[in-house]
Amino acid sequence: MYEQITYEVAEPAAIITLNRPDRLNAWTNQMAAEVKHAMAAAEGDESVVGIIITGAGRGFCAGADMKVLQGLAKGGNRETTPEELAADPGNPDMGESFRGTYTYLLSVSKPVIAAINGPVAGMAVPISVCCDLRFASDRASFLTAFPQRGLIAEWASGWLLPRLIGPANTLDLLFSGRKIDASEAFRMGLVNRVCEHDSLLSEARDYIEQLAANCSPTSMAIIKRQVYRSLMTNLGDAEKEAFGLMLESFKRPDFGEGVRAFMEKRSPEFARVSSGKPDA
Amino acid sequence: MYEQITYEVAEPAAIITLNRPDRLNAWTNQMAAEVKHAMAAAEGDESVVGIIITGAGRGFCAGADMKVLQGLAKGGNRETTPEELAADPGNPDMGESFRGTYTYLLSVSKPVIAAINGPVAGMAVPISVCCDLRFASDRASFLTAFPQRGLIAEWASGWLLPRLIGPANTLDLLFSGRKIDASEAFRMGLVNRVCEHDSLLSEARDYIEQLAANCSPTSMAIIKRQVYRSLMTNLGDAEKEAFGLMLESFKRPDFGEGVRAFMEKRSPEFARVSSGKPDA
Amino acid sequence: MYEQITYEVAEPAAIITLNRPDRLNAWTNQMAAEVKHAMAAAEGDESVVGIIITGAGRGFCAGADMKVLQGLAKGGNRETTPEELAADPGNPDMGESFRGTYTYLLSVSKPVIAAINGPVAGMAVPISVCCDLRFASDRASFLTAFPQRGLIAEWASGWLLPRLIGPANTLDLLFSGRKIDASEAFRMGLVNRVCEHDSLLSEARDYIEQLAANCSPTSMAIIKRQVYRSLMTNLGDAEKEAFGLMLESFKRPDFGEGVRAFMEKRSPEFARVSSGKPDA
Repeated sequence: MYEQITYEVAEPAAIITLNRPDRLNAWTNQMAAEVKHAMAAAEGDESVVGIIITGAGRGFCAGADMKVLQGLAKGGNRETTPEELAADPGNPDMGESFRGTYTYLLSVSKPVIAAINGPVAGMAVPISVCCDLRFASDRASFLTAFPQRGLIAEWASGWLLPRLIGPANTLDLLFSGRKIDASEAFRMGLVNRVCEHDSLLSEARDYIEQLAANCSPTSMAIIKRQVYRSLMTNLGDAEKEAFGLMLESFKRPDFGEGVRAFMEKRSPEFARVSSGKPDA
Repeated sequence: MYEQITYEVAEPAAIITLNRPDRLNAWTNQMAAEVKHAMAAAEGDESVVGIIITGAGRGFCAGADMKVLQGLAKGGNRETTPEELAADPGNPDMGESFRGTYTYLLSVSKPVIAAINGPVAGMAVPISVCCDLRFASDRASFLTAFPQRGLIAEWASGWLLPRLIGPANTLDLLFSGRKIDASEAFRMGLVNRVCEHDSLLSEARDYIEQLAANCSPTSMAIIKRQVYRSLMTNLGDAEKEAFGLMLESFKRPDFGEGVRAFMEKRSPEFARVSSGKPDA
Repeated sequence: MYEQITYEVAEPAAIITLNRPDRLNAWTNQMAAEVKHAMAAAEGDESVVGIIITGAGRGFCAGADMKVLQGLAKGGNRETTPEELAADPGNPDMGESFRGTYTYLLSVSKPVIAAINGPVAGMAVPISVCCDLRFASDRASFLTAFPQRGLIAEWASGWLLPRLIGPANTLDLLFSGRKIDASEAFRMGLVNRVCEHDSLLSEARDYIEQLAANCSPTSMAIIKRQVYRSLMTNLGDAEKEAFGLMLESFKRPDFGEGVRAFMEKRSPEFARVSSGKPDA
């Protein structure tokens, strides 16, 4: 079905693998469309609790394929493919800020982990920053190389990086385009966890298995929406909205099940979700 | 006077102790009202320079008492008690965002330190995040357990945590509801300091004693207001407001005293403040 | 030409040295005007890729000269000198928030590194926070002493510090006015790098030499503008703006040169810029 990625559901995780290893998984318009389509598939699949995105071979993604760059350099917009148009992952209720070319990832209603298995470069850095969590192999490295190519802070990196690692670390990375390793990325807060290379994927899977065993998928969908929307709302509105969401959560079966499971010292059995609209 | 907390003024610190140790200090509506009342008392007491909130026994707070949860789960609002209505801590000039159920703590005109002496769980995590500083015992642990109970990012946690520890750490903690220890909390920036368990309270007291010996209470009240309001204002307005506040500070006796004390190599004697309205 | 600073261009770096070492480089109105003038000179000089600001002698800057403080304390505004009015560094397109007394530094179209060679105190802390990067000598120390003098969070510190180090670290530093050393500043994210004292200036120069050898000055100017403006815009607008800026970057010669140099495994030769208006 897909040509440039592979998509596997190993319940409870969906794994999207960028799969052009001979090109260090360089990003193309088709790959963008396939990833978006696979995200929609994962979001719509009740058996999927969390989504992993990783790379085949020795790296995560080299950034834009030169052909894409050349097409864009000729003045063209990035082409939207029919596959991409057909896919519609993410939650439209979150608003325009979360319906962008890659910011749609922030509105996908399930946790998205970038399992960074080696170099991540160029525009793949902004894409990885649109994932909720980043687990890095100890062989991972990060470099945007934007200024080395006469480019700018691409996609949402100029907005998201200052909120992840502060404006001073952001400017250090984006002025210099320098390569940093996993431990420096961890120190800055760019990655959540550094893993031994060989256990990277299993750690990401384990994390999602823990979520599946213990956490309400509906809760996670709502929490993700709260956290990202709160970056652009004011405190009072956020506290008020949280109060309303809390009252709603009391009415859902997951609440009763969560409390009972806790009392009975057993794992809870929560309703799985199959779309980006947890309250629909 | 209080049933579920104790309130002690050991000049220059006020110490509010959550005091239901047989229930790991589980939070109730009455406890909320008593804490709010005590905060108003501390704010109105000139001898108090800073406020410590801690827990009796082996932990800080287990989160909501099951009875509170059950009441809320039946669809009820949290009841506001007469004691709570009578108390009015915090600075109303800071605006609605700082008059919420727990966000009022951000407008209390004196430094508030959460001295976290053991587990802090559930809704007590959002409450602790509304304190200015968090000092943690090396026996402290943090877990929200929100997704384990089918709940959401309660109170202001979805808004404040991304600004304290970034959105990726926030989602890690809120998706998983996992327990973290004091050192991981420190690494993330969730706590300011990790203390040996037995010296936790004395370190928090010492900190407030240093503030009382060296720092203008009026300055601290204004600085607290500036920092929290700045989270929702723009840079230019903040710099302009700071210039105006600086000129006003030059006219207060604390400025002359601060400069003279510095010149004379002695401790300054600043005016104590007795309400949330430092300029009133 | 200058009395209280020295200004040296050692291509590709401009070095502004606060030069009242017998007064620990205490800040005066004249120094402010001279720094602003030198910033304009550096911005207008094509040979300058990055700007270093440092202090002569054993420290960076003691903060406001007592005479300045006394003038301000008498109710006067900070006087704007003719030199300062003549200088106009920074990019007016960034908006009012970046045209303030010291926030203009955020709109200077070249990277600005504070090379902090010893104590930085009082209002010099807010000034250093308006620099893009902070490299600290292992002898550096930071203290605002604002509350010790009855002062407030001066200039833009109350707004910028929470975005650099979070509100809890900010309140710790601003409530207490306590002195922190370089390693604590590094841990908090207040400085980008700690250097051995004797190599501080050479590390800052090397950093700018690397920028000059590898990075497009136009890219850096645009990236700086994106990052700082993004602190006050919404995510969707930022992603859209970045897309437009990317398309524009494809049309500039720097893009072709960057790609060719990469293919040919040589250093790129980018156009130098000579004003704050990279697209003019």
